[in-house]
Amino acid sequence: MRIGRLTCATSLGMAVRKISVGMLGCGVVGQGILRLLETNRAAIEARLGGAIEVSRILVRDTAKVAAAGVDPALLTTDPADVLERADVDVIVEVMGGIEPAGSYLRRAIDRGLSVVTANKALLAERGDELIEAAEAQEVDLYFEAAVAGGIPIIRTLREALASDRVVAMKGIVNGTSNYILSRMNDAGLEFDVALKEAQAAGYAEADPTLDVNGGDAAHKLTILATLAYGARLHASQVPMEGIDTVGAVDMAMADRFGYVIKPLAVARRAEGDALDLRVHPALVEKSRVLASITGALNAVFLEGATLGPCLLSGRGAGADPTATSVVADIIDVGRNLLSGARGRVPTRAFLGERLTEQPVRDIGDLVCRYYLRFVVCDEPGVLARIAGVLGEHRVSIEQMVQTEAQGQVNVVMITHACREADLTAALQQLRTSADLQEPPRRFRIDEG
Amino acid sequence: MRIGRLTCATSLGMAVRKISVGMLGCGVVGQGILRLLETNRAAIEARLGGAIEVSRILVRDTAKVAAAGVDPALLTTDPADVLERADVDVIVEVMGGIEPAGSYLRRAIDRGLSVVTANKALLAERGDELIEAAEAQEVDLYFEAAVAGGIPIIRTLREALASDRVVAMKGIVNGTSNYILSRMNDAGLEFDVALKEAQAAGYAEADPTLDVNGGDAAHKLTILATLAYGARLHASQVPMEGIDTVGAVDMAMADRFGYVIKPLAVARRAEGDALDLRVHPALVEKSRVLASITGALNAVFLEGATLGPCLLSGRGAGADPTATSVVADIIDVGRNLLSGARGRVPTRAFLGERLTEQPVRDIGDLVCRYYLRFVVCDEPGVLARIAGVLGEHRVSIEQMVQTEAQGQVNVVMITHACREADLTAALQQLRTSADLQEPPRRFRIDEG
Repeated sequence: MRIGRLTCATSLGMAVRKISVGMLGCGVVGQGILRLLETNRAAIEARLGGAIEVSRILVRDTAKVAAAGVDPALLTTDPADVLERADVDVIVEVMGGIEPAGSYLRRAIDRGLSVVTANKALLAERGDELIEAAEAQEVDLYFEAAVAGGIPIIRTLREALASDRVVAMKGIVNGTSNYILSRMNDAGLEFDVALKEAQAAGYAEADPTLDVNGGDAAHKLTILATLAYGARLHASQVPMEGIDTVGAVDMAMADRFGYVIKPLAVARRAEGDALDLRVHPALVEKSRVLASITGALNAVFLEGATLGPCLLSGRGAGADPTATSVVADIIDVGRNLLSGARGRVPTRAFLGERLTEQPVRDIGDLVCRYYLRFVVCDEPGVLARIAGVLGEHRVSIEQMVQTEAQGQVNVVMITHACREADLTAALQQLRTSADLQEPPRRFRIDEG
Repeated sequence: MRIGRLTCATSLGMAVRKISVGMLGCGVVGQGILRLLETNRAAIEARLGGAIEVSRILVRDTAKVAAAGVDPALLTTDPADVLERADVDVIVEVMGGIEPAGSYLRRAIDRGLSVVTANKALLAERGDELIEAAEAQEVDLYFEAAVAGGIPIIRTLREALASDRVVAMKGIVNGTSNYILSRMNDAGLEFDVALKEAQAAGYAEADPTLDVNGGDAAHKLTILATLAYGARLHASQVPMEGIDTVGAVDMAMADRFGYVIKPLAVARRAEGDALDLRVHPALVEKSRVLASITGALNAVFLEGATLGPCLLSGRGAGADPTATSVVADIIDVGRNLLSGARGRVPTRAFLGERLTEQPVRDIGDLVCRYYLRFVVCDEPGVLARIAGVLGEHRVSIEQMVQTEAQGQVNVVMITHACREADLTAALQQLRTSADLQEPPRRFRIDEG
């Protein structure tokens, strides 16, 4: 028990209680945390009933961080100098990457320290190991900032939704993808151009792979679905498709049909124990609130069996919203320490031993409407042959539009609801057809 | 300390821990709570690490409640039979009204019991007394359901926003008003017709006064502003205007100017220590997300100094969302009891002794743009005389439209930003003018 140490000094007759933080990493997020702790010092004390002090920060290059204005006396390049300090109550990890971040957190947990992290890749890869270690030690492992930045979705799933059964969860949880698709929609840009713009604006990394291919969203969805459904899951189970196959013409055609293409992450209760998990661009009706979540904003739409619909939206990334969530977590850990609470809320919303294996439904069994685009030769009979192959596979067409743009003839179809495996088989067969000048494009339509 | 009692039985070698609930009232919300506890029993245990059992329910008419399917053995008409029971851990109040609900909660708190309530009127009227008693006893007083039903706004202000400074908060927190204005907008109804429809649909009470005149929203805003700003406030300090002055013609004209009229509750940091608090219908640009919160839905938009914008929306009333929030609160109290946490989070987000008196800014000092409508005689010189009076009071006109509908000539103006006191003086002067056939209508325009 570390409680005894916390009441450490008196001033004006009141006990001054202190939560001492050891930080791992001090990049833009770390510096944002220091700034926020400083700016809101008085208000945080008034809410926590104690002060939060950063006592040591592990960095790679002390000179560089000191040059950014951080007190050099706090900086160290020796992990033990943070992790083994006697006076630290909580370790905050904002260094990123799987290693050595994972080993450092494990060392801290094994020492009986609570930890706060913003590292969704680490959680998706090694979350279970770290969480089980934390639960064994009855310490906190908080990670509000790891999913959807400043949106309190982790708290909401752990606490506000603890009384209800989650029926469905749909989110826009990758701000980079949302920014790129929004720019494609607003300005008619092609993907490559919008990506370059996002990089220039600081919304995309130099290597945007994980953002653009759905990998980052799959990491986040894995975390959210674990909390919502009490399922043991790994990110590799999430079927995903990137946004890089969306063309400016698809955005324009979607608009014509009353839709906008958004980067969705979906977790729904399917039949029986199964979960319908997936990350992909999808057509969303323009009148839905999710369609109005534009730019780098994130949103998570929850449907509770009793609660009904609930939407949370806000900034999903960036130093400021991330720092806000990290410091809120530090305050939460502090409240637990100061009130003597140990293991108050299960890290994954459900007690570890009550998590269950839940199969992820085969994406081939998904039934929905689809948007299809075929680039075809302008010859008689082409349409009939495409429709024929679709029909053979039980895919029927609800609407069809043929347009010519930049010398290409595009045939765009909206299908009736059909089984994805059937559509995949049809498209597989069409892929080798001499009628098509490009592989067919296929996007799912998400219904409200 | 009541902790010792909680581990009370074993089954399959595991300790079964139990949180025993005494309920006050068993109307639609109370029955919703019983249903939710029953339906989600296994999942709640998996999240809480213990069972929640309702052990006694105070009702006025046992036969009536039993006829609704509630176990008669749980029912009593004797308050002491719930409040003085030795085996109760938490008291849940869903009877409504100020008295005797307030006295019952006070008795429970003074006995050292945690309490959960959905009663915003009681909190607005006697919240400080009850909360201070609870803080003195180190017991919990939770009330997530009291504001915006199923939306976790209380938790968000207490925990997720604990690290940041709230700059502004704008909400649609009265579902009845939002339903009425939405129907007026969608179907062109007059207020009276839309109100009757809301009553028929169960969205408005037989006596809709508090919903329609802003009183209910003022109660909720008082609670939210206390949590957001750490201010000692009373509902009587909130300037409010009802939605009953909005006409179908105002809705149509707002639409023509690109706006929709929504029932807003606003709490903003004004100059210095002052708070800008108010409840009133306001014109909101159609492209804003708040404009898309329709029907009986609620929403709260928060602007954090560091967090940036954050929106939460969902169902604001009704037995189901209310029950979801009440049971989430019971689980929270249960987690505190089972983990041994006492006084973990201040009830008003800030420690009681750190709350401050903060002046509410005079509404006359508000500066914004206004929508004005004058019903005038169709005579030469009328417009010039109205514009002249406005000009004398430093109110200048940005746009003006004159329309004739149902034999009335309506002059509708959008002003440039001006001081409300100036506009009020101008309208006061115009009120006695022979040019006007009705008192002028004036609505504020809320900017994004």
